[in-house]
Amino acid sequence: MNLPPTVFDPPFRITRASHVALSVSDLAASRAFYSDVIGLVLTAQDGDTLYFRGIEEACHHSLVLRQGAEPLCARLGMRVLTEEDLDRAKSFFDAKGCPTRWAEAPFQGRTLHVTDVAGVPLELCARMSAEPRMITKFSAHRGGCAQRLDHYQILTPRVRDACAMYMEAGFRLTEYIAPPGSSDLLGVFLQRKGNPHDIVFFNGAGPRLHHVAYLAPEVHHLLHACDVAGALGFGARIERGPGRHGPGHAMFVYFRDPDGHRVELFNTHYQVMDLENEPVGWDPSDHNISFPWGLPAQRKWFEQATNFVGTPVSEPERKPNPMTLETYLSKQQG
Amino acid sequence: MNLPPTVFDPPFRITRASHVALSVSDLAASRAFYSDVIGLVLTAQDGDTLYFRGIEEACHHSLVLRQGAEPLCARLGMRVLTEEDLDRAKSFFDAKGCPTRWAEAPFQGRTLHVTDVAGVPLELCARMSAEPRMITKFSAHRGGCAQRLDHYQILTPRVRDACAMYMEAGFRLTEYIAPPGSSDLLGVFLQRKGNPHDIVFFNGAGPRLHHVAYLAPEVHHLLHACDVAGALGFGARIERGPGRHGPGHAMFVYFRDPDGHRVELFNTHYQVMDLENEPVGWDPSDHNISFPWGLPAQRKWFEQATNFVGTPVSEPERKPNPMTLETYLSKQQG
Amino acid sequence: MNLPPTVFDPPFRITRASHVALSVSDLAASRAFYSDVIGLVLTAQDGDTLYFRGIEEACHHSLVLRQGAEPLCARLGMRVLTEEDLDRAKSFFDAKGCPTRWAEAPFQGRTLHVTDVAGVPLELCARMSAEPRMITKFSAHRGGCAQRLDHYQILTPRVRDACAMYMEAGFRLTEYIAPPGSSDLLGVFLQRKGNPHDIVFFNGAGPRLHHVAYLAPEVHHLLHACDVAGALGFGARIERGPGRHGPGHAMFVYFRDPDGHRVELFNTHYQVMDLENEPVGWDPSDHNISFPWGLPAQRKWFEQATNFVGTPVSEPERKPNPMTLETYLSKQQG
Amino acid sequence: MNLPPTVFDPPFRITRASHVALSVSDLAASRAFYSDVIGLVLTAQDGDTLYFRGIEEACHHSLVLRQGAEPLCARLGMRVLTEEDLDRAKSFFDAKGCPTRWAEAPFQGRTLHVTDVAGVPLELCARMSAEPRMITKFSAHRGGCAQRLDHYQILTPRVRDACAMYMEAGFRLTEYIAPPGSSDLLGVFLQRKGNPHDIVFFNGAGPRLHHVAYLAPEVHHLLHACDVAGALGFGARIERGPGRHGPGHAMFVYFRDPDGHRVELFNTHYQVMDLENEPVGWDPSDHNISFPWGLPAQRKWFEQATNFVGTPVSEPERKPNPMTLETYLSKQQG
Repeated sequence: MNLPPTVFDPPFRITRASHVALSVSDLAASRAFYSDVIGLVLTAQDGDTLYFRGIEEACHHSLVLRQGAEPLCARLGMRVLTEEDLDRAKSFFDAKGCPTRWAEAPFQGRTLHVTDVAGVPLELCARMSAEPRMITKFSAHRGGCAQRLDHYQILTPRVRDACAMYMEAGFRLTEYIAPPGSSDLLGVFLQRKGNPHDIVFFNGAGPRLHHVAYLAPEVHHLLHACDVAGALGFGARIERGPGRHGPGHAMFVYFRDPDGHRVELFNTHYQVMDLENEPVGWDPSDHNISFPWGLPAQRKWFEQATNFVGTPVSEPERKPNPMTLETYLSKQQG
Repeated sequence: MNLPPTVFDPPFRITRASHVALSVSDLAASRAFYSDVIGLVLTAQDGDTLYFRGIEEACHHSLVLRQGAEPLCARLGMRVLTEEDLDRAKSFFDAKGCPTRWAEAPFQGRTLHVTDVAGVPLELCARMSAEPRMITKFSAHRGGCAQRLDHYQILTPRVRDACAMYMEAGFRLTEYIAPPGSSDLLGVFLQRKGNPHDIVFFNGAGPRLHHVAYLAPEVHHLLHACDVAGALGFGARIERGPGRHGPGHAMFVYFRDPDGHRVELFNTHYQVMDLENEPVGWDPSDHNISFPWGLPAQRKWFEQATNFVGTPVSEPERKPNPMTLETYLSKQQG
Repeated sequence: MNLPPTVFDPPFRITRASHVALSVSDLAASRAFYSDVIGLVLTAQDGDTLYFRGIEEACHHSLVLRQGAEPLCARLGMRVLTEEDLDRAKSFFDAKGCPTRWAEAPFQGRTLHVTDVAGVPLELCARMSAEPRMITKFSAHRGGCAQRLDHYQILTPRVRDACAMYMEAGFRLTEYIAPPGSSDLLGVFLQRKGNPHDIVFFNGAGPRLHHVAYLAPEVHHLLHACDVAGALGFGARIERGPGRHGPGHAMFVYFRDPDGHRVELFNTHYQVMDLENEPVGWDPSDHNISFPWGLPAQRKWFEQATNFVGTPVSEPERKPNPMTLETYLSKQQG
Repeated sequence: MNLPPTVFDPPFRITRASHVALSVSDLAASRAFYSDVIGLVLTAQDGDTLYFRGIEEACHHSLVLRQGAEPLCARLGMRVLTEEDLDRAKSFFDAKGCPTRWAEAPFQGRTLHVTDVAGVPLELCARMSAEPRMITKFSAHRGGCAQRLDHYQILTPRVRDACAMYMEAGFRLTEYIAPPGSSDLLGVFLQRKGNPHDIVFFNGAGPRLHHVAYLAPEVHHLLHACDVAGALGFGARIERGPGRHGPGHAMFVYFRDPDGHRVELFNTHYQVMDLENEPVGWDPSDHNISFPWGLPAQRKWFEQATNFVGTPVSEPERKPNPMTLETYLSKQQG
């Protein structure tokens, strides 16, 4: 497989996926869902905007919910190491022809808006207001005890372009999905923070946000999130899982929030930091990878996603053809 | 609902569901499955018969596997408290017109074979050879760490008859499933040992053994059983779950063993011992009961089951009409 | 070892250890401790009395706290199967010369007060008011999620007398502690409900209540109880553990409540129901039994206990000589 | 508190604490301990040397055990990002007057030996032989399932010097321990990989290796390690815990291996990557920090440690005076 080169001395230093802004139709319903089921901590409410953080997060917010008519994603946030990295980021994206502009964002330092090569609206900053970590406030923990935002997954027809641009920006490719013998990249897992992924791109109509993922401390927290969801009337919002990822090895549960935004809770990740860690390729037809046990995801898990504000959606040349639960069941019965 | 009366001074004392005998086509495959995935301890191999027990069980066996051409259940075992209870049991069943006979069974004391009112072949004994409990042999624990056999579920067109006979024999009805306002008993949970069930009867073509259930210590053992199943090539044998039972509240996973016999692993149960604990009725159309979160069971979970040796199967008058995964998905997409 | 005989047809049928009444000096502090740390559900407050139950308990109360100047135990409760068993219990204890009297107890059916042969004030009833089980109200679960009262441990100089009387009343002896070759019973584990113990007697100054034990669903709930204790200022109330019992195999944590009453949270138990399950003897000098790993309990865990109301305390002939943490550390350093 | 400045553009890039070499007296005993209790994977045996890695580690080894007469630590390993970083590291340490030399190390790329300012023998390399990650080989997991090496703790009289040197080399100070109002640094937590620590220095006679820490997936793995230790005769090797760290919040267990080397298993860590994350100071007299619940560590946990090969030990000016278990118990009883 012809893959872009790893860049060990990147032009600027993104440190991690950090925060996401979504519009929701009913702040009270979303607040109940994210506080009680996912287990985020409400840092602040400011008019029609809610700011949440994970129980270990010392930054002001990793999830911003704004009242809005349509369920859209405004922007995906990334942190850079220093203020200088922000200026270098602007130069990098300007040189690529990616639109950039300085923006104001409450509770954040200088903030750069960028649209990446796949059309995803990003937001970079080096600094946020600091808040106390709630990780040892055990009596305040709720539901899935979401610790911290970990990664995003994007659907896009431009997986290879995205892979090339992010790797040029210093992301390492940890895993990729490609049919054997093909040069088609169907999925790429890209990271800066030393675990398998900060941002993932899969082939599909896009750009659309497939999901945002929060780390939960242990598997029983995932299950408690499910149980609380059931007890509070959100039981039908569990779309997939609990189950086990093949390559990434984590246990997962996928929820749809009250507006249909997809949130993954998952547990521990492995570390990818060493020079000898070459990208690992997976064959999409290997079921042990997509579902090592149990049943595959239902069709809507593959197809439905959140649009980005003001961003047109394009169809991919190669139509995705995953093994869905619907297909699996029909083959089984036949 | 017109329910049979609870009998507090039963004619003989069954203590618990205790052991089951199944025929399997490949002893090596079954041994791997039950040892490594379910986590049972092999007590003995005697020719073409394997005897397994749970990690806490001090009795010789709770699962007997015999090489056989067809995947059948030979018999469901129950323990009685004393040898005298065995004689009283014979009188009870003889008086009911249920066939009984004394039988020889290796590693068991005096053993009574009985066919119950629903046609289920039972085996009663007061005594087995004693074996060391393996519960603190932590380095020998494997897979799901199945602790002990807990209960059986039977499909039968004769739910009400079975309920009446078992209650007359001293079983308490803890939960039942019936449409509101109807006198149709679609499911009954009957117990002697003080938790929700030793034997469960559901309306369906039968008598057939729907599943045998082993208790696992904690939820992470259920998940480890799934993961080991995946790693050892049994991943597609996970038919349902992990998920949460509505009424009984336990977490569960249902496996199909290499011959298709269904085995449930589940975690902790509540206690039902007090005089004021009246049977609790559930409405089968309430999804919070059948699946409080996530997805319902696929059709084959409802329909497939193990035949009993030499026992004809009858169709129920009222056809079961559960919410299957297939129906649920089709409604969702429509 | 000369042990009393097991009685399979007891004169009356106790079903289980069920409820305990303690006096406490500060209802608010105790309420916080039992609700938030132990995780009990407050059923009712009636003047200066709090009634708690475990999250799975359908009975009105398993813990009754009454405001009082001194930290005492008023009574240990046992459930009997039927009202007739209550009358038979009275005859049994009257014949033994154990004081009995009928009493009124709120939210309970007919209630019999008895003082057992060791001087322990008991309370028997067949019925309580029924309450909804909270086990699936997942968003209301707190701290250790105590499911149900499981057993009591008593210090007494009269271990053998207690053992004989309880076995005559139908309790089975599951385990006992005795020096090899000696006929001294230093500890006995007695049960009616089919797991290792409803009531335990250990040699020591008494009768005193050493602890009351609640079952927690899983080990992570034990640890969460500890963490919540730490977060709420009860961290120094954790006296022993988390650790592993040798014989009984359960994981445990021992708390001292705000008045010094000792409460154990522990996880799953094995089943003891079969005819061949003879009592198992343990050698008290075997450290693998008293602490299979880690450190032994501190001295006060062995020595301190709760007095019963109006009940004088006697010293045992044979002074207890356990391996305490203090002794263990001094030997290690020496 | 006067703290060294954070260096965001370090002269070379260490990525993480990576591997440690210890001498042991009995390879078979150590192999049993690290394989069965800690749960490491044996990558290779080469004569009298054993190479282990964690279940998720793709590098050849994180623990090297060599047969030796005395229980010593040969060297602590760090990974650097690229080969160029290795040359820059040499320049950095040469300029500091820290002894450096190129060395051969099996299964590693170019390897630089360095003695740091505190006298600790380090070993830096950019590359190791790659091995398959075993994280999804679930049926091969044992004991504590140690995932990966996480950090080292060192006792030294030169805490401030070490802090200054490591921060100049790009380590971030996440937490430190100092009496309020004092400029005495009693402990410093330094990291490169974005969680609280790769290397920790505490005031004490040294340099000596206090412990090496492996991450375990979940708390139940910590407990399983304890249980397996007990079952295999290593129960008395559990020196401290399971318990909860105050500041770092992780659950921990400390083992002494058969030669007395101390190994910590602990669970999940929080992330420290953001510009606004200033070092957090702890008051050593605050018990909620050193033991938020339960009992403090015994004296030998504070005092005993592993010497480095050929490295003299110096006493600190300020004698450590921690709250030991022995002191705590004596105050309690008094």
